[in-house]
Amino acid sequence: MNYQQYFRDQLVQLQEEGNYRVFADLERQRGAFPTARSYTENGPEKVTVWCSNDYLGMGQNPSVLKAMHQVIDECGAGAGGTRNISGTTHQHVLLEQELADLHGKDAALLFTSGYVSNWAALGTLASRIPGITVLSDELNHASMIEGIRHSRCQKRIWKHNDVADLERHLAELPANAPKLIALESVYSMDGDIAPIAEICDLADRYGAMTYLDEVHAVGLYGPRGGGIAEREGLMDRLTVIEGTLGKAFGVVGGYIAASKELVDFVRSFASGFIFTTALPPAVAAGAAASVRHLKQSNSERHLHQQRVREVRDRLDDLGIPHTPNPSHIIPVMVGDPVKCRFISDVLMRDYGIYIQPINYPTVPKGTERLRITPSPVHSTDDVDRLVSALGELWTQCQLARSPMAAQ
Amino acid sequence: MNYQQYFRDQLVQLQEEGNYRVFADLERQRGAFPTARSYTENGPEKVTVWCSNDYLGMGQNPSVLKAMHQVIDECGAGAGGTRNISGTTHQHVLLEQELADLHGKDAALLFTSGYVSNWAALGTLASRIPGITVLSDELNHASMIEGIRHSRCQKRIWKHNDVADLERHLAELPANAPKLIALESVYSMDGDIAPIAEICDLADRYGAMTYLDEVHAVGLYGPRGGGIAEREGLMDRLTVIEGTLGKAFGVVGGYIAASKELVDFVRSFASGFIFTTALPPAVAAGAAASVRHLKQSNSERHLHQQRVREVRDRLDDLGIPHTPNPSHIIPVMVGDPVKCRFISDVLMRDYGIYIQPINYPTVPKGTERLRITPSPVHSTDDVDRLVSALGELWTQCQLARSPMAAQ
Repeated sequence: MNYQQYFRDQLVQLQEEGNYRVFADLERQRGAFPTARSYTENGPEKVTVWCSNDYLGMGQNPSVLKAMHQVIDECGAGAGGTRNISGTTHQHVLLEQELADLHGKDAALLFTSGYVSNWAALGTLASRIPGITVLSDELNHASMIEGIRHSRCQKRIWKHNDVADLERHLAELPANAPKLIALESVYSMDGDIAPIAEICDLADRYGAMTYLDEVHAVGLYGPRGGGIAEREGLMDRLTVIEGTLGKAFGVVGGYIAASKELVDFVRSFASGFIFTTALPPAVAAGAAASVRHLKQSNSERHLHQQRVREVRDRLDDLGIPHTPNPSHIIPVMVGDPVKCRFISDVLMRDYGIYIQPINYPTVPKGTERLRITPSPVHSTDDVDRLVSALGELWTQCQLARSPMAAQ
Repeated sequence: MNYQQYFRDQLVQLQEEGNYRVFADLERQRGAFPTARSYTENGPEKVTVWCSNDYLGMGQNPSVLKAMHQVIDECGAGAGGTRNISGTTHQHVLLEQELADLHGKDAALLFTSGYVSNWAALGTLASRIPGITVLSDELNHASMIEGIRHSRCQKRIWKHNDVADLERHLAELPANAPKLIALESVYSMDGDIAPIAEICDLADRYGAMTYLDEVHAVGLYGPRGGGIAEREGLMDRLTVIEGTLGKAFGVVGGYIAASKELVDFVRSFASGFIFTTALPPAVAAGAAASVRHLKQSNSERHLHQQRVREVRDRLDDLGIPHTPNPSHIIPVMVGDPVKCRFISDVLMRDYGIYIQPINYPTVPKGTERLRITPSPVHSTDDVDRLVSALGELWTQCQLARSPMAAQ
């Protein structure tokens, strides 16, 4: 077989579908974020980033950076081993305590990424509890799907955020059989929020565990940044809360928080936890500083919500269609991969505005979109430039405006 | 079902088998590594680490730390997104160029860890090439096994390092069917090295791709730290070389290096690459500095080999049995999980020496061991203290000595 030719053919096919990804080559400017340098053929250019998941700008928070500098000076660069073989540093232990406290749980376990935390924790629970059925929301993230799939457990896919459909599945399963309901709080691409309380009610009624992915909510919602479950007073009703340190907390890494026994079980049996080098101590220290900061400070969350409202209102004024949702994510629907990429390219080239086109496989084909993530570090001037650029492009490309437009 | 009770029962079983893992809680001392503080019930105590995979002490190399400090100051903490959605920073691009150059390949692709690089790259190649058979060495690392398993491809497990058995499997497969041979260069727990040239010969003869995991070799072998394949002049014969930035390079992260087309294929289709936050730019910059340093400097590699020889010779003098192998890994066999843990505990408590017991599932039951990893930053005095402690313990525990002992 001609392997090279096969790879080339597959890549050409992606290109023809408009789904070939070109990564923007950026250099973030600490202290000036969301400004970044974009490396292009003509050398670096200044752009404003409008699609980062560093939702609160914590990636440049002085207390986070100070903690990282300090631990690099004290401990060096890497952890030097797996958690079991010399790689557990005191910074990991402190961070896990901070995360357990954040979610009101007995224990927490750190993974190298949010992806790995979902894949490894779900994969382990689902493969190691004989006869378990995982009930998974149909729009769950790829990392959850891969974890469930990897376990080869029995599974039921229920309709997105549809409690009646979930109950239908639960009712069909034997009362005493082990069950795990897996869901997200904020769904990242549409920004809608799950009916967590009703799902917990069903879990109680049918004897199921619950696994809640809060990666797009931790740091952002709840009085201490514990996520949607904290805001709604539901943390103690969830069996597992999973989160990330790479979005609102501004660093990198993932985790689960749960009972001491469940965490110890995953710690003891998850291949993706056991057989991998621990995160650098400085990363753990930076993340812990970020979590601590956002437990105490509400100003970032407040300004974040304000900025989101401002962008939505200004888009409405111009009739730029965006999907309504109760979160901080603003999906501007384009519905075509080639058009979506074109608009993104023009925004970057002519306006110094960077919004990555979101195409398949991140979203279903036909729902290609620009996903805008306002943050407290975007200024009113940044908002003006964004909205006016989109307005001009909507005219230039003769794209449909929503009927609610002011003019 | 009583989930908590189930978790408790499983953990008790692990404890009864002697396979329950207790992580040493350490704080590395930058500039004084392999010295670390060990947090115990009685407060922190000074220990010498003898089981780190920071094989060359690059985790405290000044050029690595300087690069990390500088990029934290310039760019902040996290990348803020997946590689596709605002998370590709210029430091990732530069690091990938550095890695491609290290292995003499057209391109390289960075992952959040070595585990993820194996899982995602093998999982993608094996699931996306219709009809492929993966031929996997029976002692391949968990991350490779999970990647192959995840792909649900056809697979053949060949006997460890046994070229005749590999050929037998290859000969049974149709000549034109796609095939991938997966192996490691240095096997981490036994320290033996694969017959790479002969395996490349077979790959040529039977039209197979080759995938070589060099995580325990990059930085350590070859004139520029390209690994065993570089040392043996074989890099151009391998389809994929996989490596880590978390062991000899002293930071964290994993990668593959291969043809432009293969790398672009994995980049475009690997779930574990696409749907995860990119490594912090400072981590990428630190790793790039480490790779650059070890391309130019042989002194660390030279001193490393010297220290390994010294420890082996001193163990032989006392008849402490260790498995002979051509690498830098010194496995001292104990063969019992409880005894292995006991020796490790006494070393830590009474001698200030930290060697984690290596038990199941990292190694097969019955082959429990102390795995010693000498480094250039261990002093002759450190070696004296290690060998004399082991000598005393061997007497105290009445453990067998090897016949080659001087006395």
